[in-house]
Amino acid sequence: METPDNANETPALTGIAAQDWATASAEPQYRAAVVDLLGALAYGELAAFERLAEDAKLAPTLADKAELAKMASAEFHHFERLTDRLTAIEVEPTGAMEPFAKALDDFHRQTAPSDWLEGLVKAYVGDSIASDFYREVAARLDSDTRSLVLAVLDDTGHGNFAVEKVRAAIEADPRVGGRLALWARRLMGEALSQAQRVVADRDALSTMLVGGVADGFDLAEVGRMFSRITEAHTKRMAALGLAA
Amino acid sequence: METPDNANETPALTGIAAQDWATASAEPQYRAAVVDLLGALAYGELAAFERLAEDAKLAPTLADKAELAKMASAEFHHFERLTDRLTAIEVEPTGAMEPFAKALDDFHRQTAPSDWLEGLVKAYVGDSIASDFYREVAARLDSDTRSLVLAVLDDTGHGNFAVEKVRAAIEADPRVGGRLALWARRLMGEALSQAQRVVADRDALSTMLVGGVADGFDLAEVGRMFSRITEAHTKRMAALGLAA
Repeated sequence: METPDNANETPALTGIAAQDWATASAEPQYRAAVVDLLGALAYGELAAFERLAEDAKLAPTLADKAELAKMASAEFHHFERLTDRLTAIEVEPTGAMEPFAKALDDFHRQTAPSDWLEGLVKAYVGDSIASDFYREVAARLDSDTRSLVLAVLDDTGHGNFAVEKVRAAIEADPRVGGRLALWARRLMGEALSQAQRVVADRDALSTMLVGGVADGFDLAEVGRMFSRITEAHTKRMAALGLAA
Repeated sequence: METPDNANETPALTGIAAQDWATASAEPQYRAAVVDLLGALAYGELAAFERLAEDAKLAPTLADKAELAKMASAEFHHFERLTDRLTAIEVEPTGAMEPFAKALDDFHRQTAPSDWLEGLVKAYVGDSIASDFYREVAARLDSDTRSLVLAVLDDTGHGNFAVEKVRAAIEADPRVGGRLALWARRLMGEALSQAQRVVADRDALSTMLVGGVADGFDLAEVGRMFSRITEAHTKRMAALGLAA
């Protein structure tokens, strides 16, 4: 996982970010947004678990397989933390996850890797985009929810394994780079298209993502967030030797 | 996971079982047998992880999927403990696992569940047989290796989830019982056939399994161990409403 340039800046906490969950959740729209967020992240982790476990079958060696299984198992633990939190705030996790199942399942179905390297690039891209998104959203959360989101984020970063393997494969055969660059672009395209569908469907979540709990939903701000995540992705792909 | 009838008996520890790893491993054949055992168990856990994660896709509900993913993640942690132990005794885990990969892969390939209930029965049968086998073998191990094997065993027992679901399905439609009974029989048949292949191939492991580290390999004793495990399986299947 790459660290964005601004990782060490500590923005001043204002509004919701200066409140704890007990205070912030008194606002029904904020509460609904957090339930949506935790549900979406939880299903995302469960779906990632499934896909990584599936992709482990493509591993060329036993050690590689074990490494992907380890990433999958880490995703499962994130899933557990997120669903435990939902239960703690008296929300049934399944109900919170269900609105996001289709978008995530569609994403994974449309981006099933056809070989080991595609699987690695997907694991790396997915891990990185998830990290960027967690960071973006953390700033908009109450202190308790933010701690959880940052704790889950802290525990990712298995992506370096993927980076090493992909770099070595491109060095060995530069043509591999072209194919994987196309693949990474397709992954990002599908991710954005599913994310936009979710944003359109889930008002409370979208409003929170743009920095407010109330009216004044600003689609342009969602667009800017997607732009920042896409730019970070492009930089990472370039660093990996893939023209994004 | 069922507890065998003799679970509370504490047999007197003699021979290898009274020694620790440092002492016992001075005997090269015993050392080789433990490396084989840990390698076989580790690959077994990794393969179980993969299959449970795969079978999670058959789950009818999100909650069921999460439950199978949890079982898969538990298997992965067993895998980690076993490979950590191999590393601690200065054995490269991949090399220790490789001799057993084909038998376990073949088993799983030949017993891919065709639906959710078959997957549950397989998870339960696999968990139970693994527990029985761990228990059988623990008595023949030095104290350090035995602690590890029993610790891994202690941490299983997710089978109850499967038992409840299978019982409910048979109650709802008794014909399901006949089909699943055939399936359980096939699972046991494939497991025994692969186990016998491993026993035939790996002298040191087989010799340890029959209770000795030296000559006097007694195939009849391996047969008796398999019989005990099969009997326990038959009782469990009957308790589940499946004529084994």
